[in-house]
Amino acid sequence: MQKQKMLINGERLKDSLEKFADFGRTANNGVTRLSLSEEDRLARNYFRSCCEELGLDVKVDDMGNMYATLAGTEDKPPIVIGSHLDSVKKGGRFDGVLGVLAGLEVVRTLVDNNVKPKIPVTIANITNEEGARFEPSMMASGVLSGKFDKAKMVQSTDVDGITFGEALKSIGYEGDEANRLKEATAFIEIHIEQGPILEHENLTIGVVECVLGMCCYEIEVTGESDHAGTTPMAMRKDALFATNNLITEARTKLNALDNDLVYTMGRLNVLPNIHTVIPNKVIFTLEARHQNPATIQKVEEIILGLTQSSANEGCEVKATKLWGRDTVWFDQEIVDSVEQATQTLGYSYKRMVSGAGHDAQFLASYIPSAMIFAPSINGKSHSEEELTTYEDCEKGVNVVLETVLSLQSK
Amino acid sequence: MQKQKMLINGERLKDSLEKFADFGRTANNGVTRLSLSEEDRLARNYFRSCCEELGLDVKVDDMGNMYATLAGTEDKPPIVIGSHLDSVKKGGRFDGVLGVLAGLEVVRTLVDNNVKPKIPVTIANITNEEGARFEPSMMASGVLSGKFDKAKMVQSTDVDGITFGEALKSIGYEGDEANRLKEATAFIEIHIEQGPILEHENLTIGVVECVLGMCCYEIEVTGESDHAGTTPMAMRKDALFATNNLITEARTKLNALDNDLVYTMGRLNVLPNIHTVIPNKVIFTLEARHQNPATIQKVEEIILGLTQSSANEGCEVKATKLWGRDTVWFDQEIVDSVEQATQTLGYSYKRMVSGAGHDAQFLASYIPSAMIFAPSINGKSHSEEELTTYEDCEKGVNVVLETVLSLQSK
Repeated sequence: MQKQKMLINGERLKDSLEKFADFGRTANNGVTRLSLSEEDRLARNYFRSCCEELGLDVKVDDMGNMYATLAGTEDKPPIVIGSHLDSVKKGGRFDGVLGVLAGLEVVRTLVDNNVKPKIPVTIANITNEEGARFEPSMMASGVLSGKFDKAKMVQSTDVDGITFGEALKSIGYEGDEANRLKEATAFIEIHIEQGPILEHENLTIGVVECVLGMCCYEIEVTGESDHAGTTPMAMRKDALFATNNLITEARTKLNALDNDLVYTMGRLNVLPNIHTVIPNKVIFTLEARHQNPATIQKVEEIILGLTQSSANEGCEVKATKLWGRDTVWFDQEIVDSVEQATQTLGYSYKRMVSGAGHDAQFLASYIPSAMIFAPSINGKSHSEEELTTYEDCEKGVNVVLETVLSLQSK
Repeated sequence: MQKQKMLINGERLKDSLEKFADFGRTANNGVTRLSLSEEDRLARNYFRSCCEELGLDVKVDDMGNMYATLAGTEDKPPIVIGSHLDSVKKGGRFDGVLGVLAGLEVVRTLVDNNVKPKIPVTIANITNEEGARFEPSMMASGVLSGKFDKAKMVQSTDVDGITFGEALKSIGYEGDEANRLKEATAFIEIHIEQGPILEHENLTIGVVECVLGMCCYEIEVTGESDHAGTTPMAMRKDALFATNNLITEARTKLNALDNDLVYTMGRLNVLPNIHTVIPNKVIFTLEARHQNPATIQKVEEIILGLTQSSANEGCEVKATKLWGRDTVWFDQEIVDSVEQATQTLGYSYKRMVSGAGHDAQFLASYIPSAMIFAPSINGKSHSEEELTTYEDCEKGVNVVLETVLSLQSK
């Protein structure tokens, strides 16, 4: 006979989220908690004290990743619930921290209910997901998964010339390489969606199937600078006019590819950028994301085709690939478990993709992983406007708990 | 019976141009001679010594304008030949200085030929045409013509916080307001074209009829910043996409107006200008020039129409007029004299407009004025690449001489 369903304590989760928001809270109720900053140190210390209060074993590895483990009755690789405590400058109160505090709340609930799990449950705080102070983003999960070279990473410097390695030592969170997360039964990351889809479709839970593959190009258009008043239109090589044509051409072709494709020209610089001088150079980025590698391939063909466009207004067009990544598909079984847990709880949901990058996409290379999205109001993130309702946070963390419980019986 | 035609000394003109290029010559054979700089002071001193050697009376007014006068046999307002000795940073060897040295060469030629003119001939060096160190450009001719307020102008500061007034005193060129150019029979300015038309049409002389009227707007497009990976295309308010549509719309309409219209979007800034963030703001300038006020009026209607465009991608569009100016038509008689002089000398020429601003356009408000253009190789100016052949300089100054001689007989 099934007992009454175990649920987390929503009020306690809300209090935790607000308590952690105090570590770097901004005037507009956002958060600035850059990786390895004083605010990060205080948040880490408080997180550790919360875990120790629960009797958890807290370990730190050589990248500063923290692992707080509730022992299991069997010696099995843990089920890991985690995300990151660092934020961007003037970020929000939910991005990252929700995934760590979800772990804390799940373990607190297990302890409240005197549940001694068969499989250990670990709460993970993964260092420097944002890359806002030390590039690149997802640095520590990149090292854990072997994508990034640790020796290089610790040399990454902030704007003041301080290295990641120095900062890690100075806040007292340089642990032992032996503590690295090597094996796990599952990695579950709940995160705010950072997009508008769930709210727009009035849904509570996003069951994330993959992190989108992408490509990012820099396109350089070179014309000739001449006097704006004395050069007849027919004798110009205006790099901005050419760019305008190329963007139109690219948009027409990209829009025809697939409705799910997203693409952005986020950075665009004009030279010399003087109102009385015809621009001789425009450099802009074009990045595109889609789950299907064939679609990304077509995007790249369209971008490379721009260099041969007849709409170049006499300018030279170069395209350079800055980087690309393949779509990361999450573990089918864990994703199904998340979906099943959501159905069990009776929450509305959809299977969806993640357009943004997350630690889970790196960890998925060696741990069966899945992600859960909670709705972002107006799709805002990386801004003080970022908001997810506490009700939605609570429901999301209930899905984490239900998933962990279901994985226990495997 | 007509004597053999009087011509200037081309070798001497070339030597003068090269000598003056030494005052601020750059590594790439350009010139940096900012207004009231040490280089400007040395050029002014040398100009004065050249004039005094010729026995001319040299006066300086309260804006630092210099007037070197060859007396006439009759007490008439002078025929003034002039332009400016200042340059932009890394400018060329001909812009401005050609018009001053034309005056010097014409007077030297008159003296060589023992011509005692009926009407006095004045060589003028007008201060700070470029506005490269102290804004605005055409500062001193603006004060002479009453367009600009002297009290304000002397407070204009350079990047180091030095005022125009302080700099003028420090180089020893603050003269007497009583010396200002008040009345003249004519003002003649020869200048490099700064555009490609004469070279393109293989012509030697531009007989300039007017300085184009213009308008300059700043257009601000406001959308919403969202995550480039998580926001579906249909839910975006991308300020760059909107700008792209607006530029296309503007170009289509502007191109249909008139072949002589020139227009430029020279400055364009994207915010926040991060490759992973959808732009929430684009601010760009649109300036247009044409001799016909009705055409400029139509341009303004097109620009203002952009704020109501249906192609705004959900963004808000504002247009603010930064400034405008009316077309300045030069004196019909003086322009005809220049054309007649060119024909007399047998040089190829065309009547044309000036798309760029010049001191003559301000002085024309109270002195019968005209301009002569010499061909610019590749239309380049305000750059070290600026070039006009010495042969073309010589021919241009011969036109100045011939015009001055013809005006003497009025």
